[in-house]
Order: sequence, then structure tokens, then C-alpha cells
Amino acid sequence: MAAHLSTSIGHSTPDRIEVKGLDLANALMGEVDFGSVFFLLAAGRLPAMGEARLFNAILVALADHGLTPSALAARLTYLGAPDAVQGAIAAGLLGAGSTFLGVFENVGRLLRAAMPASTTSEAELDAIAVRLVAKHEELGTRLPGLGHPVHHGGDPRTLRLIEIAEEEGLLGPHIRLMLRVQAHAAAGATRPLPLNAGGASGALLCDLGIATPGLRGVALVSRAAGLVGHVLEEASAPIGRWLWDTAENSVTYVTPRSSDPADKSVPEN
Amino acid sequence: MAAHLSTSIGHSTPDRIEVKGLDLANALMGEVDFGSVFFLLAAGRLPAMGEARLFNAILVALADHGLTPSALAARLTYLGAPDAVQGAIAAGLLGAGSTFLGVFENVGRLLRAAMPASTTSEAELDAIAVRLVAKHEELGTRLPGLGHPVHHGGDPRTLRLIEIAEEEGLLGPHIRLMLRVQAHAAAGATRPLPLNAGGASGALLCDLGIATPGLRGVALVSRAAGLVGHVLEEASAPIGRWLWDTAENSVTYVTPRSSDPADKSVPEN
Amino acid sequence: MAAHLSTSIGHSTPDRIEVKGLDLANALMGEVDFGSVFFLLAAGRLPAMGEARLFNAILVALADHGLTPSALAARLTYLGAPDAVQGAIAAGLLGAGSTFLGVFENVGRLLRAAMPASTTSEAELDAIAVRLVAKHEELGTRLPGLGHPVHHGGDPRTLRLIEIAEEEGLLGPHIRLMLRVQAHAAAGATRPLPLNAGGASGALLCDLGIATPGLRGVALVSRAAGLVGHVLEEASAPIGRWLWDTAENSVTYVTPRSSDPADKSVPEN
Amino acid sequence: MAAHLSTSIGHSTPDRIEVKGLDLANALMGEVDFGSVFFLLAAGRLPAMGEARLFNAILVALADHGLTPSALAARLTYLGAPDAVQGAIAAGLLGAGSTFLGVFENVGRLLRAAMPASTTSEAELDAIAVRLVAKHEELGTRLPGLGHPVHHGGDPRTLRLIEIAEEEGLLGPHIRLMLRVQAHAAAGATRPLPLNAGGASGALLCDLGIATPGLRGVALVSRAAGLVGHVLEEASAPIGRWLWDTAENSVTYVTPRSSDPADKSVPEN
Repeated sequence: MAAHLSTSIGHSTPDRIEVKGLDLANALMGEVDFGSVFFLLAAGRLPAMGEARLFNAILVALADHGLTPSALAARLTYLGAPDAVQGAIAAGLLGAGSTFLGVFENVGRLLRAAMPASTTSEAELDAIAVRLVAKHEELGTRLPGLGHPVHHGGDPRTLRLIEIAEEEGLLGPHIRLMLRVQAHAAAGATRPLPLNAGGASGALLCDLGIATPGLRGVALVSRAAGLVGHVLEEASAPIGRWLWDTAENSVTYVTPRSSDPADKSVPEN
Repeated sequence: MAAHLSTSIGHSTPDRIEVKGLDLANALMGEVDFGSVFFLLAAGRLPAMGEARLFNAILVALADHGLTPSALAARLTYLGAPDAVQGAIAAGLLGAGSTFLGVFENVGRLLRAAMPASTTSEAELDAIAVRLVAKHEELGTRLPGLGHPVHHGGDPRTLRLIEIAEEEGLLGPHIRLMLRVQAHAAAGATRPLPLNAGGASGALLCDLGIATPGLRGVALVSRAAGLVGHVLEEASAPIGRWLWDTAENSVTYVTPRSSDPADKSVPEN
Repeated sequence: MAAHLSTSIGHSTPDRIEVKGLDLANALMGEVDFGSVFFLLAAGRLPAMGEARLFNAILVALADHGLTPSALAARLTYLGAPDAVQGAIAAGLLGAGSTFLGVFENVGRLLRAAMPASTTSEAELDAIAVRLVAKHEELGTRLPGLGHPVHHGGDPRTLRLIEIAEEEGLLGPHIRLMLRVQAHAAAGATRPLPLNAGGASGALLCDLGIATPGLRGVALVSRAAGLVGHVLEEASAPIGRWLWDTAENSVTYVTPRSSDPADKSVPEN
Repeated sequence: MAAHLSTSIGHSTPDRIEVKGLDLANALMGEVDFGSVFFLLAAGRLPAMGEARLFNAILVALADHGLTPSALAARLTYLGAPDAVQGAIAAGLLGAGSTFLGVFENVGRLLRAAMPASTTSEAELDAIAVRLVAKHEELGTRLPGLGHPVHHGGDPRTLRLIEIAEEEGLLGPHIRLMLRVQAHAAAGATRPLPLNAGGASGALLCDLGIATPGLRGVALVSRAAGLVGHVLEEASAPIGRWLWDTAENSVTYVTPRSSDPADKSVPEN
């Protein structure tokens, strides 16, 4: 009945475990770093050496950004459920949603829709970039991956990612297109519009062959490492209870205007 | 008021991001693999080279084990919310709870309570192991980290982890104690009691200096990578809907015995 | 500093707890049913009697629909983490995402954008409905809230919801518009297009004054009740392990075509 | 193969949906409030009228308690993922774990282990209570369900729950035992030990026949309603970003003592 159903991820027999066709214990453990095995799971093949270096650099770049809403949600959840650490990590990942990680997918969709290839010339990439920027200006929508609330002068992670990609010969058509999009958008903007780490990572992951639903997934695994760091720190130097007290003491309780059933004013969003 | 509150995880200024005191862009990205940066976040310091190899091997060992309940939960969640991949990964991690990942913490607590040190002699470790096994037999409780439903003759991941730890001079007091616990428990058992990958990893992570609340966390990051693989496969070769149909067609609906309010039989657990 | 921050949800002093301006212990407990207190939390006021009946009927309608992907995810999560029931319920809710619950918000946005009011005449509503259907046909997009995989001849919950709304004088402009949209869409369709329970509920909740971000929230609370039922049944009559075995036995492991790093074929989505 | 697998929760055919053996559209919707249908799902039968009042009062009592860690986690998650409201509600529930909701199960286990029955005399209940209190004093462990950080003089929700249970003739053996446990524990204590709302609810739910794994589940459904209220308020009067800024500005970044790989000091927990 289910003969057509298949998986290529993993399989085990009493004395062998296989992941994507490779012997886990003998071909992967001790031989290949975790970032590369994650690449294997996400791209379906082991990375070449330069690809492994770039993919690991992306994972490292996104692992932590301090006391983000996501880190705070994980810490508050740990306060409520210290016996179920998986809940704290899950809560932190749920807060790493569209506002923060949406950029990966949005950049991926934008670039892939333009279908740049290794054979696309620089002049063609430039023409595509001009069209993309013009189209967003016309529609009044924001281009994903540009701008940063803190790193106005350039996101230090982006600069380093580009450098590594260049060293490894991995400045593929997606990142080259994205850099041109950034240049044209910034030229016409009144505020600084650096390519942020999310935008650069999304483009580079497209070049590395990660499928679109996996772009956000890469960021989630990376961020999970940072969240484990936050949960461990919360266990020894907690801020959760202080956060709770601060909210209770700083936010004024205002009796609602009306709790009268006759008041049928319809809230809108 | 909050002058005593501190974090040592990360910090950023307009042109620099620091993680655990190190310059993210220049000292970590492109220089250190992701597994080692996760070690930095979890243990508070960068690993030595052999430690990095062992820690990565543990992460690789636990990344995937096929169509587990956790992988199925992630795939079913993706079916319901394909636009929020973080929900699918979070759901998968929530299924990686006490039944499967509890072993890390339980092994950690068992071993740390016995306080083996690098100065503890083999004879002393053996005496501790005998006492631990005897105590569990007396109480009729199961020792954590032993036995496997599939790998009866020995978990291939465990054998490889021990081998790597030995090569790197990292067979510390916790794993040496655990191996002796396994030997004594297996000697008195009527069924095979190999040291499983969770048990070996828990002990080795204790030797590597990961604090107890972080033990399960290490497994969660590792498993997240496998879950991204499952979500990507679900996006292109889905099994979620088949699983749903199978459940609906195979599970018989039985009208409850009574829906009468007068029936006050109390269910117990 | 935070003087402008306020909450109107709840507040407690040593001898009094207030919810939305009302005394929890004396004005709500024992006096008002839970559905009505949920309405108070979501709409900011207590419902009139007919509103309470309709709102409760919506909650009842959506509480369960058998062995859905969401219920299966909750059961599989309970199998992995029986000590953290909150994780099982959370996993189930995460599976109740855009595919299934998106309809509430989509119907809400569609109808609210058309701004029907109690003063809008039937002829005007009909004209709006004709325009909405024509626009979707032109764009080739599906109208939300229409069609059902099982209930082709009409969703029994929808029929009952309309009946109750009529009895209580609560057939407001949003549901009347939605019924006209359904009529015009069904007239031009080649397959049955009944108004489903999600579509009817979304429209009725708009008429009841629930703000758009709360529409999916109403369904989530309702569905949580069904998930508790599934977790309780899983605890006494489990299907999780059978589901796991079935997946492992029915899904064929296919060695991936290539794990060669030289193979750089780029998966697309 | 799966002939022995069964479910009694729900079932649907093209023109009928059944929940626990009852016709959803005609016997439940518009006839029975949501709290009672939740009781049907959790206890397997519809409640008698007094039971419905008490069960609804418990749900109402626990729905909200202001800006709790759980509410803050939901709001921070909404800030990061406003398009996936299910993630915000799930994150909030994950924070409603053992620290806060564990009391339900712990009270349930404590009382059920003592097996009080409707035939147990008051003198016998008193003797059991004395033994339970003595045993906990001997072991130095805390009895669950007693004490409250704010409501020292008595939790207003508890007083009301007892009152309602009394009015409805539902002061069963579990709550009567719990009240005696509280009396004996408070008599020997140096600080106020009122029976808190969680403790009272846990005992009353045992008397109502909710199985132990469902006790926490009842609180989760109730709390989900409060979380929807918080998410709605966050959408119109946000505090999430202020909370984030406050954490970043109040928590000092302290460079870790050492990130030297040679420093192998082992953190313990």
C-alpha cells in the first residue's frame, strides 16, 4: 500500500547506522565535523572542504546575538519548567520566527525567483538587481536582508562571510546578485542599508544548494546552540525572575474602559 | 537595581560582536567549526583539539535515528504549518523528551553524585560501580544508559565514541566509571545490556565539563539538525498525509461505554 | 521610564484578583462559564447571553476532529515526554497552523477589508460578494473558508452555527457577506463548495468583535481541549508506538543517489 | 494488523461528527457550554449540572494571573513571529511547566496514593492527613499545593472553589483530605500555609474523576485562554520590545574569566 513511500535520511540494522547512505560510526563520527554532517542532512551530500568552512562560518555567525526576545523566552520558560529543557529550547526557537528569521526565506525566494546561474554575466546580474530595486521602490515594499538596527556601518559578520566565500571560491551567482541589489538600494536610500548577516547567509546558502524550506532551518539549528548557552547561564546566574518582577512593577494595570456587555465596539487589527 | 545582573554570553557594539569574550567575526568565523563554538557556549571555553573532535563526534552520533516519533511529530507539524518551519522543529524537539533524552541527564546525575575524579584509582571506580549496581538491584530500578531495542550486541556509536575518546586521551573518570557500571550490570543480567549512545555521550560530556542542565541541550542541538533534514524531505517527498490516513483507517472508533452524567466511575492513572 | 506601559488583563493584591476589571473570585467564578470568561479576555467585555451561547458553540464545534495530524503530533510527543504534558499540547497546537487554522485569519482579513457594517444593505452585501468572487477568479486564487474534504454536502457544524446565530439575532454583516460569497462562488464552481466550519466561525467571530490576531487564538484554545482528550487516551490506550513502527516498516529506505561532494546539483523549492 | 487499536474521542462521516459518542452539531453545539464539552473529552462523560459549574469555576480561576513568565514568553514570541500565533501560545504553555503547573499532578499523586474514598470517615481522613504531614516533615520535603507568594492570608480563588463545591455537594474525599492536610501542615508551620488555587483545583479535579495525566492538561487549556488575551493586548499595546530593551540595558555584559582551552575547570550543577 505504501510501497511508494521512501526516506533517504537514515536507517539502522543491529550493527550499522546509516545517514544519507554513509556509515555513521565509521565514515562520519570522528572523521567529519558536525556542521558538515548537518550540511549532509540539509543538502543531501557532504560539503567540499571550502563549503564546509563557509557553512560552519554561517552557523557560527548566527549562533547568538545576546539577550534577544528569543533568548528571554527560553529563559522565562526554563524558570517555569526547569525539568523539561526541551521546552525552553523549543520556546526560544518559536520566538525566532518571521520577524528575525523570515529574512532567510525572503532573500532566498527573491533571489531564486530571479534565477541567477553561474553562467549569468556580471552585466546581466546588474541589470536584474536594478530591476529588483526599481520594482520594490515602485511597490513601496522593503527589500529583505538590508539594514541593521545596530550595525549601521556594515554588519561585521557579513564582511567576514563575503571574505571567506571569496577565499574559498564560493561567491556564487546568488550572493553576487544580492551584493548588487544592496549597492543599488543603498545608492538611492537616505539611511544606511548594509547587507545584514541574515541576508548574506540566505544568499550564500542558496549558492551552497540548500533548498528554500531549509534556509530558516539552518538558522534554527545555529540559534539552538545559543539558546543552550542561555539556559545554562539561567541555571547558574538567573535573570528570569528579575524580568518577571520588572514587568509586574513597570507595567501599570489600567482598568478597562468598559466590561459592559452592551458595549459592542469592534476592535480591528 | 539590577546592577548585580550579568551575562557572559554575548554582546555587540556597532562594529564588533563578542561571544564569550571572543571576537565573533575575526576569532571564530572561518577559524573555528560550529561544534567548537557550541562547546564554547556550553562549557564557557573553546575546546582543545581532541575535545573538539570528541564533542563533534557526539553531536554527529545523535543527529538522526530515522523515522523516530520526534521526526514524525516534526513532519506532521510541517504538514499543518508549512509557513512556520520553527514550529515543526520545535514540535520535534518537544518529542525528544524524557523517554529518549532523559538518559543524558540521568546518567550525568548518577555519575556526578558518585564524584569520580581524575585521581580516583581504577580499584576505587570499580568499587563505586559495584555499589551503584547493587543499589539499583536492591531498589529494583533500571540503571540509565544501558540496553538498546535494536543494537543488542553493542551500539556501534558507543564503540566508536570510546575509540575516539581513547585516541584523544579523553577517557575521563565519568566514562571509566560508566564502563565499569555497564560491565557489572551486564554480568548479572539475563538480557544484553550494552552501553547505549546516550549513556556513553552523557558520561563523556560530564568528562568534557558540560554542566548537568546542558547535557540534554547538547542532544537537542544535534537532533535539530536531523529534524531539518526530515522537514526538507517532507517538503519534497511527504509521508505526513499518508500517516494521517493510515491512523484514520487503522484505528477503530469505539463508541464510549457511557456518556451518561450519572456514571461517575473514576479513571485512575 | 515605562510609565506609558500598561496592561488591562489582570492584576492581583493579597486578597483580590481582577481580570479585565472584574473580581475573579466573586464576579466570575461560579457565576460565568469558562467560554464567557475567554470571551472577556479576547473581546474585552463579557458577552451578552446570546453571544455567550454562540461563542461557546464555536468553541465546541472546533474542539476535536478525530485523529488529525495535530492530535497525532501530540500523541507522539507524549510518547517521548510523558512527564511534560505541556510539551505534547504545545506540539499539537504547533501542528494546528496555517493549513488548518489559517482559514480563520484569512476569512477575517477578507471580510474586514470589505468593511461590511450593520447598516450595509443586503443588495450592497451582494454586490461586494460578487466583486470578491470575481476578483479571486481573475487572480486564480482560492477563497478561504469554502470546501471540505469530507463534508461535501454541507458541514454539519456550519449549518448549526448559522441556526444558533439566527436564533440569537447574531447574523451580523460579516457572516451575511460570507454566506453570499459562498453562494456566488458555489454557483460558478464545478465541485461542491460548502461553507466550512472554519469559514463560518471566522466570520461569526468578526461579528462578535474578536480582533484579527485573536481569531486563530480562539481555535487554539478550543483545539487544546481536544488535545488533552487525545493525551489522556494515549496514556491509557496508546497508538504512538504503533504509529512509529508502522512508519518504520512502511517507508522504504532508499540510499541517496549520491553523497559525493562533487555533485553540486542544487535542489529548488 | 492494527485491529486492536481504538479511539473513543471522535469520528466523522460526511453528514455527522461524533465526539465521545454524542452528535457534535445537534447534541452539543448550542446545548452544552465549552467547559462541559472539555469535561466530556477529559472525563469521558458529560458533567452533571453542579459538576459543570465547579469545573467551569476551576477553568475560570486559572485562566490568568497577570504578567507571569508564561505570559511574557508568549508576548516575546509574538514579537518574533506575529504570523504564527500558535507559536506564541505554545511558548506560553511551555513556560507553564513543573514550577507552576506541577502542583496539579503532585497534589493528584499525593492524594490518589492515599486512596481516600467516599466511604472513608472523617476520622480516617484525619489520620491519613496526620501521617502525610509527618512523613513530609521527616523527609524534609514540601507538601504540594500549600503556600502562596502573594495571597498569604488565603487564596481568594481557593475560598470560592470550596464554597462552590460545598453548594454543589461536591466536597469529595480528595478535597476533604487535602483540607485536613493543609490544617495539620499549617498548625506546625512558622509561615502562612494557605491551600493555594492549584492545590485546591488538583484535589477537586481528582474528585471530579479527571485522570492524573489530565490534571495539568485542564490548567493548560485554561491558561491558553489567558495567553490569547495577552497576545491580543501585545498586538495593540506591546510591551515585548520594551522588555527586550530593558534586559539589554540592565544586564551587564561581563567578559568571561577565561576562554582559554587550557582552563578545564568543570562546571557542576
